[in-house]
Amino acid sequence: MYKRILIANRGEIALRIIRACKELGIETVCVYSTADRGSQYLQLADESYCIGPAKSAQSYLKIDQIISAAEVGNVEAIHPGYGFLAENAHFNEVCRSCKIDFIGPTPEAMDALGDKNRAREAARKANVPVVPGSAGLIEDDEEAVRTAREIGYPVLIKATAGGGGKGMRVAANELALKPALQAAKTEAAAAFGNGGVYLERYIEKPRHVEVQIIADHHGNVCHLFERECSTQRRHQKLIEESPAPRLPAERRKEMCEAAVRLIKQVGYTNAGTVEFIVDQQDNFYFIEVNARVQVEHPVTEMVTGIDIIKTQILVASGEPLPFKQEDIKQTGCAIECRINAENPDRNFQPNPGLIKQMFVPGGLGVRFDSHAHAGYVVPPHYDSMIGKLIVYKPTRAEAIATMIRALDELRVEGIATTAMFHKKVLSHATFADALVDTGFVERTFLAPEVHK
Amino acid sequence: MYKRILIANRGEIALRIIRACKELGIETVCVYSTADRGSQYLQLADESYCIGPAKSAQSYLKIDQIISAAEVGNVEAIHPGYGFLAENAHFNEVCRSCKIDFIGPTPEAMDALGDKNRAREAARKANVPVVPGSAGLIEDDEEAVRTAREIGYPVLIKATAGGGGKGMRVAANELALKPALQAAKTEAAAAFGNGGVYLERYIEKPRHVEVQIIADHHGNVCHLFERECSTQRRHQKLIEESPAPRLPAERRKEMCEAAVRLIKQVGYTNAGTVEFIVDQQDNFYFIEVNARVQVEHPVTEMVTGIDIIKTQILVASGEPLPFKQEDIKQTGCAIECRINAENPDRNFQPNPGLIKQMFVPGGLGVRFDSHAHAGYVVPPHYDSMIGKLIVYKPTRAEAIATMIRALDELRVEGIATTAMFHKKVLSHATFADALVDTGFVERTFLAPEVHK
Repeated sequence: MYKRILIANRGEIALRIIRACKELGIETVCVYSTADRGSQYLQLADESYCIGPAKSAQSYLKIDQIISAAEVGNVEAIHPGYGFLAENAHFNEVCRSCKIDFIGPTPEAMDALGDKNRAREAARKANVPVVPGSAGLIEDDEEAVRTAREIGYPVLIKATAGGGGKGMRVAANELALKPALQAAKTEAAAAFGNGGVYLERYIEKPRHVEVQIIADHHGNVCHLFERECSTQRRHQKLIEESPAPRLPAERRKEMCEAAVRLIKQVGYTNAGTVEFIVDQQDNFYFIEVNARVQVEHPVTEMVTGIDIIKTQILVASGEPLPFKQEDIKQTGCAIECRINAENPDRNFQPNPGLIKQMFVPGGLGVRFDSHAHAGYVVPPHYDSMIGKLIVYKPTRAEAIATMIRALDELRVEGIATTAMFHKKVLSHATFADALVDTGFVERTFLAPEVHK
Repeated sequence: MYKRILIANRGEIALRIIRACKELGIETVCVYSTADRGSQYLQLADESYCIGPAKSAQSYLKIDQIISAAEVGNVEAIHPGYGFLAENAHFNEVCRSCKIDFIGPTPEAMDALGDKNRAREAARKANVPVVPGSAGLIEDDEEAVRTAREIGYPVLIKATAGGGGKGMRVAANELALKPALQAAKTEAAAAFGNGGVYLERYIEKPRHVEVQIIADHHGNVCHLFERECSTQRRHQKLIEESPAPRLPAERRKEMCEAAVRLIKQVGYTNAGTVEFIVDQQDNFYFIEVNARVQVEHPVTEMVTGIDIIKTQILVASGEPLPFKQEDIKQTGCAIECRINAENPDRNFQPNPGLIKQMFVPGGLGVRFDSHAHAGYVVPPHYDSMIGKLIVYKPTRAEAIATMIRALDELRVEGIATTAMFHKKVLSHATFADALVDTGFVERTFLAPEVHK
């Protein structure tokens, strides 16, 4: 096991990793930008180094600075958290060349899954269902027309290098196809420097369900069951839960087994998430693999009792997984609400600034993972998430009731947050009935002009 | 189920009861003294009434004021929490005469258990082991000498109306017996207006283990397993955990079954705790019943998943217990540290005042039940407990590691707390080895002159 690791991240996830390390008896080295100087969680690290100014590109994304800190700090491994460099295969390679373990998959596995089209290929090989679509990238308009006829309209055009909805278009019929194709390619080329696109069947009112995977360096792969993350706003997850409500048991089993097959196929190690969309008939289709720990990992921790961050560190250090698939049980129901410093009344505009007062909810089954506190200034430079409110109860109805009372209890004064918006969503009959699809929030709560 | 209840308490436990009510959809009416006016948790109540000045005798112990608030607030029941009027049979009777449910046992059951000698009698009838001792109160010196010879020295002299160590003496031999008897009687008469004393065998290096009970009005009694509370300072519990480490499984079973027999014997309903001492050979002896919910109830909630406050409300309203004994499992390990506003370096002197900064620990398996926050002024008038830090992990070793990191994370600036003292205790090999007895803290950490 490691003696000392560096955490190449900030805020909530940096604190989360410190917690895991302290419990494992591992020393931590933190890095921070000038905007995060004086953050309270840094006092829990054994050492910390300033790596640059507020701007991410000059600090948290600055590979040379982070590697310098790792060398001066004399660490054996780096945990990248999520975001920033977490899925950067080049950073991963640099770590390897410096003989520092990267707590995540190998650069090769990351590369194989980073390209959506290659990931789809791997899924087909592993006999994992993918949304019917083009065999590879679309070369020209004629191929697009031919393929679209085969898979049937409406079709979705997606950028192979894409993410966050960029380079994505829906074409309802053949007339709309060519202009949509052109627009997607242009947008993808501008956003990612890669104009490659492919076609998929457009799934109406899909649900987003993902499977948590953990794999060691000895060929052991386990799934930790699934999470449902259909409550989204503009492709950003707002609320996540486990288990996925309304997912038939047999379908859950198939989906988890499919995820394990895919992970084995690409020789993936460490924690990862295999994302699927699920249609109204409960058919599931692979979308992509997130080659890192995810924001919403706590809901899986609550229902399985397994500490995912600790397990990541364990397997990165070469230890075998400390459990077998049959030991892992999914019990009760966990829900997470992302508390963002955003103003829901102003189109979720970020609302950084000083937290004047704060009250953290407690009680049975309530967990609040946050680096924030009264007196903390939320910097404007980064992601607006200031905390994750997680509840765990025997049943989903109880979990919803507890989340609502915990949201009422949470007070963050001085800045606007999404807490009361979450309460509105959780109080809606569609949420209680588990009929949420990925368009639910926008259709139900947001003014039409807010839609993209 | 009730629509509206009054909470006849303050601080942490008042907030705990509000949480349970909100999750059950029950409205709450709070009462507060002028010292608690403006407490943040009051904003979570549906209504609240000032019932008097800071002094408990003029507010939280003022039965007429509380009943008035209950009548004005139009509640169906009163939850007394712990402390204040929670074990006051007269208050319990007044509630009954006003047709307001008291969320606790009947006044008769409370009376039967409030007198330690009567409680011992009930235990004998229920075939529950009691410490060998006098059959009843000691009438004169001759009876004392005779009884002490029978049970063997050293003997313990205890006041029947006693508590907190008052009216208690140890006699090592016959020469010491008579003066000790006289001193105990005089002290008991002065403290409780009742000079009655009885004799017991003195148990060396005992452990304190207690069984949580919940009983409904339909004859169903369940135990929720045991808690070990041997980490004490001057008879005040500091750290509690479940399960009791080192207790053999067979002994645990016997103890839990004995507790159920006693509760059935006296027709006790609602939540209660049957306290035992356990000697070095794992023999257990009944001490007393606490006829209320206890401070340390959360450790039982963590290992059983059962919400004790909700269950109390449920059974008080006439509902049957929602589980059977065989449904209740004790899983994992939970530990609680009471965070008091006291200065361990100054003989645990209370240290009320303004909390300037506060950081609440989070992460997997961490629960912090507290009404405190940055900006809160801890009043000097009441119990010094400002929060309960509870952890839950699969194993005891993990629970200890998590508690230590959570104590490191907890920051309460502006006042002294017991957090770092807890860390010292938890880091001690005797605690890790589960060899703590009720004298451990004083022998190990406190200067001899601090001992009483």
